[in-house]
Amino acid sequence: LMASNTFGALFSITTWGESHGKAVGVVIDGCPAGLPLCEDDINAALARRAPGSNPYVSPRQEKDTGSIVSGVFEGITTGTPISIIIENTNADSSKYEPIKELYRPGHANFTYLHKYGVFDYRGGGRASARETACRVAAGAVARALLTTCGVEVTAHLSAVGGVTSTAPDDPALLRQAVASSALFVAEPHAEMQMGEAILQAMQEGDSLGGVVSFRATGLPVGLGEPLYDKVPALLAKAMFSISACKGFEMGEGFAAAAMKGSEHNDTFITRNGRVTTATNHAGGTLGGMTTGLPLTGRVAFKPTASISIPQPTVDTQGREAEFNLPAGSRHDPCVAIRAVPVVEAMCLLVLADTLLLHRARQREAHS
Amino acid sequence: LMASNTFGALFSITTWGESHGKAVGVVIDGCPAGLPLCEDDINAALARRAPGSNPYVSPRQEKDTGSIVSGVFEGITTGTPISIIIENTNADSSKYEPIKELYRPGHANFTYLHKYGVFDYRGGGRASARETACRVAAGAVARALLTTCGVEVTAHLSAVGGVTSTAPDDPALLRQAVASSALFVAEPHAEMQMGEAILQAMQEGDSLGGVVSFRATGLPVGLGEPLYDKVPALLAKAMFSISACKGFEMGEGFAAAAMKGSEHNDTFITRNGRVTTATNHAGGTLGGMTTGLPLTGRVAFKPTASISIPQPTVDTQGREAEFNLPAGSRHDPCVAIRAVPVVEAMCLLVLADTLLLHRARQREAHS
Amino acid sequence: LMASNTFGALFSITTWGESHGKAVGVVIDGCPAGLPLCEDDINAALARRAPGSNPYVSPRQEKDTGSIVSGVFEGITTGTPISIIIENTNADSSKYEPIKELYRPGHANFTYLHKYGVFDYRGGGRASARETACRVAAGAVARALLTTCGVEVTAHLSAVGGVTSTAPDDPALLRQAVASSALFVAEPHAEMQMGEAILQAMQEGDSLGGVVSFRATGLPVGLGEPLYDKVPALLAKAMFSISACKGFEMGEGFAAAAMKGSEHNDTFITRNGRVTTATNHAGGTLGGMTTGLPLTGRVAFKPTASISIPQPTVDTQGREAEFNLPAGSRHDPCVAIRAVPVVEAMCLLVLADTLLLHRARQREAHS
Amino acid sequence: LMASNTFGALFSITTWGESHGKAVGVVIDGCPAGLPLCEDDINAALARRAPGSNPYVSPRQEKDTGSIVSGVFEGITTGTPISIIIENTNADSSKYEPIKELYRPGHANFTYLHKYGVFDYRGGGRASARETACRVAAGAVARALLTTCGVEVTAHLSAVGGVTSTAPDDPALLRQAVASSALFVAEPHAEMQMGEAILQAMQEGDSLGGVVSFRATGLPVGLGEPLYDKVPALLAKAMFSISACKGFEMGEGFAAAAMKGSEHNDTFITRNGRVTTATNHAGGTLGGMTTGLPLTGRVAFKPTASISIPQPTVDTQGREAEFNLPAGSRHDPCVAIRAVPVVEAMCLLVLADTLLLHRARQREAHS
Repeated sequence: LMASNTFGALFSITTWGESHGKAVGVVIDGCPAGLPLCEDDINAALARRAPGSNPYVSPRQEKDTGSIVSGVFEGITTGTPISIIIENTNADSSKYEPIKELYRPGHANFTYLHKYGVFDYRGGGRASARETACRVAAGAVARALLTTCGVEVTAHLSAVGGVTSTAPDDPALLRQAVASSALFVAEPHAEMQMGEAILQAMQEGDSLGGVVSFRATGLPVGLGEPLYDKVPALLAKAMFSISACKGFEMGEGFAAAAMKGSEHNDTFITRNGRVTTATNHAGGTLGGMTTGLPLTGRVAFKPTASISIPQPTVDTQGREAEFNLPAGSRHDPCVAIRAVPVVEAMCLLVLADTLLLHRARQREAHS
Repeated sequence: LMASNTFGALFSITTWGESHGKAVGVVIDGCPAGLPLCEDDINAALARRAPGSNPYVSPRQEKDTGSIVSGVFEGITTGTPISIIIENTNADSSKYEPIKELYRPGHANFTYLHKYGVFDYRGGGRASARETACRVAAGAVARALLTTCGVEVTAHLSAVGGVTSTAPDDPALLRQAVASSALFVAEPHAEMQMGEAILQAMQEGDSLGGVVSFRATGLPVGLGEPLYDKVPALLAKAMFSISACKGFEMGEGFAAAAMKGSEHNDTFITRNGRVTTATNHAGGTLGGMTTGLPLTGRVAFKPTASISIPQPTVDTQGREAEFNLPAGSRHDPCVAIRAVPVVEAMCLLVLADTLLLHRARQREAHS
Repeated sequence: LMASNTFGALFSITTWGESHGKAVGVVIDGCPAGLPLCEDDINAALARRAPGSNPYVSPRQEKDTGSIVSGVFEGITTGTPISIIIENTNADSSKYEPIKELYRPGHANFTYLHKYGVFDYRGGGRASARETACRVAAGAVARALLTTCGVEVTAHLSAVGGVTSTAPDDPALLRQAVASSALFVAEPHAEMQMGEAILQAMQEGDSLGGVVSFRATGLPVGLGEPLYDKVPALLAKAMFSISACKGFEMGEGFAAAAMKGSEHNDTFITRNGRVTTATNHAGGTLGGMTTGLPLTGRVAFKPTASISIPQPTVDTQGREAEFNLPAGSRHDPCVAIRAVPVVEAMCLLVLADTLLLHRARQREAHS
Repeated sequence: LMASNTFGALFSITTWGESHGKAVGVVIDGCPAGLPLCEDDINAALARRAPGSNPYVSPRQEKDTGSIVSGVFEGITTGTPISIIIENTNADSSKYEPIKELYRPGHANFTYLHKYGVFDYRGGGRASARETACRVAAGAVARALLTTCGVEVTAHLSAVGGVTSTAPDDPALLRQAVASSALFVAEPHAEMQMGEAILQAMQEGDSLGGVVSFRATGLPVGLGEPLYDKVPALLAKAMFSISACKGFEMGEGFAAAAMKGSEHNDTFITRNGRVTTATNHAGGTLGGMTTGLPLTGRVAFKPTASISIPQPTVDTQGREAEFNLPAGSRHDPCVAIRAVPVVEAMCLLVLADTLLLHRARQREAHS
């Protein structure tokens, strides 16, 4: 709460840019020197969240190519800020003219206009999901760091339109399943049913909500700070910083509220000479610090606010009006789909940050 | 993520102290000068979370009296840091000796020991819920600020043991109902049933989870920052910083993930000459900034980890053992009850912080 | 101390870019919405510190044009981050090849290589004074904010090569004098002598140090925080963050250490119905907060480390070598000259930040 | 610039308390676990800055005993916040009544009253030098950390009343000389002359300024961040956060501004198989990062504002008045003396903070 467009402390990102400006971008500060990094790493990540790739997402044709313009020298990070710029190439602002005086139901132009008195209404301006491209680009840098430590994060779409999907226990299988799914769904049968529900909603001019689950593995014991910067607290803030997020839970989550202590407590055991727990109801943390077991959580997204059905509203003068999406405007029928790589990126960013803090706070050996 | 025992930026608190040390305390920095404040304000708030007050909570007899030792002069805040100290008067550490080498199921001593190599095991040390007394004391200071602006926050226990309770629409009625309930439940009938479920669990030596709901009213439009410091993101971090929190949601929350856009969108209307929305599925924010409608959210708490039933575990050497609560140890059968004033405090702290930031970022009038 | 390329809290800048990369840039976060701002404001400021403008500064021919790529809409700041990009157009890196294995006397490549293990040696990389272009661009944005409040900052070159120059009391006269001086010197006669000393040093292949003074007027009483974020403390950090800064003083500065209390104390008087002080030995603050009198300070810069005289050194293997500036390399004979607009920019940034904090912390009226 | 009573990021302190309140205190957050620490470490440091110890300092008889009330368990730091409380035992507030409506020349009550509208005038309130006891206590904790790394910091009084004193090259000799001097002066002859000048000023009812020098040894190469958090920048802020500081310089300081590059540049050489520099004009940093050579700097303090000579002033209504120190009020004739341990403490705090950050940002080994 300070530099409002910065996320993270030791591994921090600062994003900038409006949907229909010249470009959006991100400055990653605090990435350690010595990591191999190239634009392909960034662009492979960006391609996953790019629109236009299948019938279930926004048809906006955006190349989404990131250029690394600082902080990398001869293929290696130098410890200086890594600036990545993503140009906006497919922005037609004219169609937003007719609706610029209307409050859009479920959108942020109401609050932006009240707070700032001015709003770049074209394509949603700063409130556009386009900003998340910057998070995904930064997440790729965080991944480069975490991979050297054996940490992996995978997110997947776990609920849409009444259909749910679970993840296989094996991290490699999960990654593989998600990689081969247009909707980032781990179970092929569930993916098919979700796809049908989405197409059905599109035909009705309507939209759907959804749930994204994530899992991080390979974590050491003790990441996170025990009080206000618990790992779940940092993740909660990270996920709720994504537009349309309405809920977040770790481990058993809300279901834990209906359990008894004797059911929920994870029993400590010794396995392969290491103390761990027999179950993981906690979702990978105790007292806010990682236990070494997988971090597991779920993020709820509301249905896309932009729908093709006409909606009553008022204009900025308070007069009644009808809101109709501009012809040719492009939107996702279910924001949860393209949120999958964003959830993954936010989790990577949180873990990179806690990892660096962990190094800073390493305890002294006393004798 | 930095000073790990500090929460908040402009209105910030720093807490310190272990459960069985001499005292716990909080330093509140950034509170504006000129507010009337006295120890009674603090102690009335502390009394609400104090243990020992009814059969449903921990029988620890702790006076919980806070002393204001700086920052207030002749009954008025001076703008300098407000230091509040709460002495620990009822701490018998000897009973923890026998279990100091055992990992406690569902507790943080495992992660503390791995991270720090040392742990003040007496009464849970820093991981004790006793730390939340400091949050509640600080919340009372935040309330003194927010009351001058007409902002009110009320939390209540909304689900325990399969019983749910809803809140009346009228903020004053809600406050009154919660004030007259030992369990902070808004509906008397639900309270009775919850109480029975808790007593039943206690008889079984077991514990229950629960859900705390909160509502903030009187907010201006535009509090919060649109990207990483959205009001829901700050609240999410705040709530997940409370021990035992496993889930957080705003507005419709996880239910929103199963809705359609046409159901979830709140329609803009004009009421009393002011633009607002007809419904409040969003829970009081759009784009992360307050809409002026009530902020509504729910927080899920896991069942208390300390139960009287013997549990298998291992000791710090990895040897199998059985964990039994020390005779005479005092714990809450349902942490969600005494979490109610803590949830309220954290919400107050977040709002005080965003309010000050809002003043800082007030827009310039251009012509 | 956290995001190492960020300066400021509420009005914050994050800079990025290496001297011989594609571009350098700055993201300004926290600038209030509603301010008129255009690229001309930025470029007029950049022109002042641009090299190549007269015989006394580096002959590098750099256009130094900043593009505003976000945060401004229809000529007005929107409250979102303002991203400014300045392309590097005149960078010939080949001449740095021969010296890339040598430690440069007085330069930072020794510490960069030890800290990071890698260094973009071309043109000084991130350590280049080119980074200050970003500060000057950001300073122009801060000035746009401060001008609306009547705050003005002017810096000038006050000592070089044994010659000193003082400033006229009238702020307008000072600004005018500095604006018409190639060396930013307030007194024409002193400017001439300084110019001669600089040319003399250039002929010897040597360089000179210098002192930059600044004055800020139009300040309200009470800016700044009384303990760790005193205005002089923030200015001290700001000035010492400029490369080559070796000293900073406020008011009487080091001379105060040789004074008696009866000489140094500024007497309170009433002037025009307002309480103020008869003298301003303090340099505009008491207890770290502004008194409403002009802020005055001085910044000492060491002589440019890059000189044409051959210097003994060692290479990265520790072997003895001779360091010779690459033929055709361009450097300032006296870094203090082009530091003048940078000092001004840093002062503007500090004041913008404290101004926003002042708004946040405005006291409550009690009755 | 945020939590105004907090200094430091990873190793941070938050201080609280007014001169004539019940106590002053400090919370140290981020100190690594595993360090031996006891109250004697704190109290030995506090004894050095305690008043009443010799004829040259304030006769206030204050025991200055710090109690560690959290964060240490069985003599070892636990990684949780270390709270230290120092009671105020010798505070007679009644004598401040007669002057509470007068602006004190050279004091902060003018700015406090304008900023906050209220001021705890008794003994200077929060503006009192008493706050520095907290810094010194925290510095002792930082020293416990730094000693494990071989880092030592020693400050000494180097100029008062026209007399100067230099330090021996050997760090151990310097520490020994300072330890045996009532005025913290390294040269006995200079100490005697300074003492005479101070007694002379006291007889005149006047006060003197002075200069404190410091030196830190045993530092690794590369501490500090190259841009805005240069070690000299952090030190500059730290020193200017001490009341009465008017100037700060590193290495040659202001004298560097009068040197030529060929004089000032430190030549790289190989000594004992390690690259270092032949001289240390730079004062131990290049590009803001430590070179491994001693950090050297000087801090200028203005003469004590409280003098016994009557001074003209105005009251809070703007009416002319005469300011006379209350009979029996106790003040230092030269604040620079008791500033010596404070300068040392601030240097220790900065170095502890940069050390932890250095660990966080350690570079990755690439192959």
